[in-house]
Amino acid sequence: MISIGLLGAGRIGALHARNIAASSKARLAAVADALPAAAGSLGAELGVPVRSVDDILADRSVDAVMICSSTDTHAELIEAAARAGKAVFCEKPVDLGSERIRACLDIVAETGAKLMIGFNRRFDPHFAELQTRLRAGEIGDVELVTILSRDPSPPPLAYIGRSGGLFRDMMIHDFDMARFLLGEEPVVVMAMGSALVDPAIGIAGDVDTAAVMLRTASGRICQISNSRRASYGYDQRIEVHGARGMLRAHNLHESTVELATADGFRAAPVMNFFLERYTPAYRRELDAFIDCVVSGAAPHPDGRDGLRAQILADAATEAARTGLPQSV
Amino acid sequence: MISIGLLGAGRIGALHARNIAASSKARLAAVADALPAAAGSLGAELGVPVRSVDDILADRSVDAVMICSSTDTHAELIEAAARAGKAVFCEKPVDLGSERIRACLDIVAETGAKLMIGFNRRFDPHFAELQTRLRAGEIGDVELVTILSRDPSPPPLAYIGRSGGLFRDMMIHDFDMARFLLGEEPVVVMAMGSALVDPAIGIAGDVDTAAVMLRTASGRICQISNSRRASYGYDQRIEVHGARGMLRAHNLHESTVELATADGFRAAPVMNFFLERYTPAYRRELDAFIDCVVSGAAPHPDGRDGLRAQILADAATEAARTGLPQSV
Amino acid sequence: MISIGLLGAGRIGALHARNIAASSKARLAAVADALPAAAGSLGAELGVPVRSVDDILADRSVDAVMICSSTDTHAELIEAAARAGKAVFCEKPVDLGSERIRACLDIVAETGAKLMIGFNRRFDPHFAELQTRLRAGEIGDVELVTILSRDPSPPPLAYIGRSGGLFRDMMIHDFDMARFLLGEEPVVVMAMGSALVDPAIGIAGDVDTAAVMLRTASGRICQISNSRRASYGYDQRIEVHGARGMLRAHNLHESTVELATADGFRAAPVMNFFLERYTPAYRRELDAFIDCVVSGAAPHPDGRDGLRAQILADAATEAARTGLPQSV
Amino acid sequence: MISIGLLGAGRIGALHARNIAASSKARLAAVADALPAAAGSLGAELGVPVRSVDDILADRSVDAVMICSSTDTHAELIEAAARAGKAVFCEKPVDLGSERIRACLDIVAETGAKLMIGFNRRFDPHFAELQTRLRAGEIGDVELVTILSRDPSPPPLAYIGRSGGLFRDMMIHDFDMARFLLGEEPVVVMAMGSALVDPAIGIAGDVDTAAVMLRTASGRICQISNSRRASYGYDQRIEVHGARGMLRAHNLHESTVELATADGFRAAPVMNFFLERYTPAYRRELDAFIDCVVSGAAPHPDGRDGLRAQILADAATEAARTGLPQSV
Repeated sequence: MISIGLLGAGRIGALHARNIAASSKARLAAVADALPAAAGSLGAELGVPVRSVDDILADRSVDAVMICSSTDTHAELIEAAARAGKAVFCEKPVDLGSERIRACLDIVAETGAKLMIGFNRRFDPHFAELQTRLRAGEIGDVELVTILSRDPSPPPLAYIGRSGGLFRDMMIHDFDMARFLLGEEPVVVMAMGSALVDPAIGIAGDVDTAAVMLRTASGRICQISNSRRASYGYDQRIEVHGARGMLRAHNLHESTVELATADGFRAAPVMNFFLERYTPAYRRELDAFIDCVVSGAAPHPDGRDGLRAQILADAATEAARTGLPQSV
Repeated sequence: MISIGLLGAGRIGALHARNIAASSKARLAAVADALPAAAGSLGAELGVPVRSVDDILADRSVDAVMICSSTDTHAELIEAAARAGKAVFCEKPVDLGSERIRACLDIVAETGAKLMIGFNRRFDPHFAELQTRLRAGEIGDVELVTILSRDPSPPPLAYIGRSGGLFRDMMIHDFDMARFLLGEEPVVVMAMGSALVDPAIGIAGDVDTAAVMLRTASGRICQISNSRRASYGYDQRIEVHGARGMLRAHNLHESTVELATADGFRAAPVMNFFLERYTPAYRRELDAFIDCVVSGAAPHPDGRDGLRAQILADAATEAARTGLPQSV
Repeated sequence: MISIGLLGAGRIGALHARNIAASSKARLAAVADALPAAAGSLGAELGVPVRSVDDILADRSVDAVMICSSTDTHAELIEAAARAGKAVFCEKPVDLGSERIRACLDIVAETGAKLMIGFNRRFDPHFAELQTRLRAGEIGDVELVTILSRDPSPPPLAYIGRSGGLFRDMMIHDFDMARFLLGEEPVVVMAMGSALVDPAIGIAGDVDTAAVMLRTASGRICQISNSRRASYGYDQRIEVHGARGMLRAHNLHESTVELATADGFRAAPVMNFFLERYTPAYRRELDAFIDCVVSGAAPHPDGRDGLRAQILADAATEAARTGLPQSV
Repeated sequence: MISIGLLGAGRIGALHARNIAASSKARLAAVADALPAAAGSLGAELGVPVRSVDDILADRSVDAVMICSSTDTHAELIEAAARAGKAVFCEKPVDLGSERIRACLDIVAETGAKLMIGFNRRFDPHFAELQTRLRAGEIGDVELVTILSRDPSPPPLAYIGRSGGLFRDMMIHDFDMARFLLGEEPVVVMAMGSALVDPAIGIAGDVDTAAVMLRTASGRICQISNSRRASYGYDQRIEVHGARGMLRAHNLHESTVELATADGFRAAPVMNFFLERYTPAYRRELDAFIDCVVSGAAPHPDGRDGLRAQILADAATEAARTGLPQSV
């Protein structure tokens, strides 16, 4: 049973903390948060001490840390934890700047620390099954990947201002999924974006509706589209067209109940929101991290995956701004 | 190209007449109807002469007749046509009394005439495919058959009074389908019926909501349920559970368009009504009849199929009336 | 936080024990089992003492017990626990004989103890939603209920011998569901059964393929069918046809991934088996029991529900044996 | 009843000819084709005389012509027919060069002739319903349009050489659909294409796998993807995401039969190929043309729609060649 320290006790940190508490393979050693109230409340709920980050990193009985603090602290905490000899799980992104990520990964490499990045969707059972069957050759070579992703509603404007923009904040998950499915690195990025949901998002310099095309060196193509608003729930679909067929993963609906009346057949909305939709994914993600810590195996997705997704997000941001394709 | 005379120019007769007119393998020779206006209107539409039944039967250039007149005339017309050497297609049922059917089939047998009965659902492409795959062994031996059938709304009370009752008028199609799918004759019939849709139907001595169970000699079981009313359209589903799996045929919807909103996902009602739902079935049924006339092959479903379905309908009527199982 | 003692540490007992351990509203006080090894293993896993039944019942700090022992011990344990002042949750059935159940319920009534029976399917989120919407009037009055239930594969022959037969062992869940959905008591039962899956089941005096029809006093009808074998998983479907439409709950599939090739579109099998399919149902069932203990509210389903389902199962067994309808 | 002359008796011409023959509102006056055998065979089948193009155009009893000859003859025939005072239906495209199209449309405008272009998908009942409901405001303003289109298998290489390339030959239908759904003209086109299905297609200078993004002046975005090969049939899907929800049209499958076994649930492939998939669309398209001729109403899609789609196809071809976005 490994011992894990939690750095950051917000919404996603609390989720990971509860999963650790329910795991038979790990125990939660301590909780740290810049806001004492947040750490205190979560610590009390789970019967775990609140400690400072330095204190946790200095504790040799702590095997690993999960970094769930605000984005601007990620790189520094990764470096500190790596130097302290901890295995590190860090929520995406490592940083909003790819240069900063490179520097951070260099230090991680020097220390030999394990670093896993929280692209939770790779651990969704449906998406993971799809990718496994894809790699097993069920539809032959990949040709066209289609990813549709819509949030139920936009985040607060204040959040948008510090988010890095839709491509870095929301579509970055789809960039990671694209790499996961394409089996090759994209080399060209084209992008379009508009503020159709809320003009204030446009005034804030961001978009809420966006589309991207990626192409790999061998000519595989991926299309991604995002919207910050979907009345019918958290829409998450992937589809891969290959030489011998197609594999796709449908949405998860809130229930299987269907009503038939003179108005037709009505089924439930899709699950809403990511904490509900990806509950099993977060558990499986934690399991994978623990397994790597225990077995010594290399974690996936790792720091390089975090960097590559960020580079694609940067390129898409630039492509949407200039209207011109970007090479990556 | 064979020549066909139409006896009965009502709704179903007009449908067959138009299908004959559109066929490249048959031509419509003449139309007869007890109501001159009905015959005249259809004849004018299709450019075909109106003639008397006797005249049509006496015409040696007419190869076959399709009997679409009222039920009480069926047996007599079948006999007359068989004696006149015509191939005969007759809408279900041959008669509301099984003794009358037996007598009629004896005469047909004496004349050696071909007789096909209009159980149109056997020719529905989906149901026909299901049955073909069942016989090909895709799910092994049949164990449980489930048939759900609901009409959009009840017929006029006046019709119900002369219909022979729900089991003979509506469920008879499901009895034929049960035989088509079971691959064995039912030997026991249990039935329940209620007037839940309209009390007036109960006062008229009939039911509008009914369920039946059939068992064959080897123990195969079939469940059928009927309702005279379904707000969402003409509900027609069959499902067969076998030793190695399950085969089912879903409903046909009016369109493939789906709307997703905060209320969930809404799909179209099912097709409404039988003329629309079974349009391809009627065409294929006619083709099968023509093919038998041309090739000399025996038609299916034949008079014996009509008799067996009627016996099941009679038994179900009696079972529902008495509450007791009936052997057939 | 209430304190619960577990009587019976087999498969289903272990499931409930783990749910109690994970609950924030209850704690597991002790485990008892006739087999010391079973109790010991579960106790060790959850850090809970193994104690005798008598000891647990005598412990005034224990608020409630969950009875998960073999069926033949249920009635006696319910009585003992009720007399000891415990709230009681008992897995279905109370007993294989309805007279024994009546006697047991009399004692429960005398003691004023709470008794909840483990018909887990009522707590399936999908089925519960369907029933709630039904009662809310979304489709008007109930007219026809259809319940399809298939197990992946038959239990061992040895189990079948002491199970009370398919109607009491397997279909009893569907009888409870029928009552849950019909909103009225069935008054007539018709049944058919065959041994089609395994002749040895027939030699043992049981059936593996069965169908039932129920009718209520007002004429509502329910059809149920069961098979002990389904290659495609644990098939669990319900459908209610009402005056204004239809409500149904579809199966849960193992994943949402779909493969399209020249062979068509292939989706995953349905979840297999009940522990997986009804995981959320068991959690919600426990929550409901705890809520009743805490709030003092009457539990549902209660002893009378257990009795009524058993009476229907007895009647179906007799109906299948004699071929005659049974009044209940 | 109007009188129509058919110019071009190939596959699509024969389809239109049979639809005219089956129509109660039009009659087929004559057939012309550069290949006498093709015209003769179709004329014989339908009992219609074979005549020269000039002869048909000179016949004042002919109200309209349908141009189904090879693409390189379209513009000239349109001009000749317009000058002869005929209403004109022309299969897409008017010409592979947009300058030639403009010149042709100028002449059509001078003559005041009606000109309808054969974008059959607008008349598919499902797509037409979707667009009608979109315009009726069911999901509010359009934000994102997604169009997925895959052919079962690539055409012969010889055809590809003279087709104008995938964007002009195949995706042109999707460009028209994009305009039909967006409700605004696209102003920017980005495109990517690869030869993944067959390298010989790449050597011939074309692509077989392609993706496009369009943006309108107000910021609406459309994604299109095409593949020349899909093992599972002729894949034709559209989806529109709007301010208040989503409307989509699913594929049409060859049957509703579903098989469930240990391998999961298997449904039929999608309909294959366009003649089968779009049979009702072609009938409705003809009806719309006839209605315009009879009523004097302006036809849709018209020559300008043909021109706009061609301009988008040209732009996409250039965008894919250069890698640069194109303004239109």
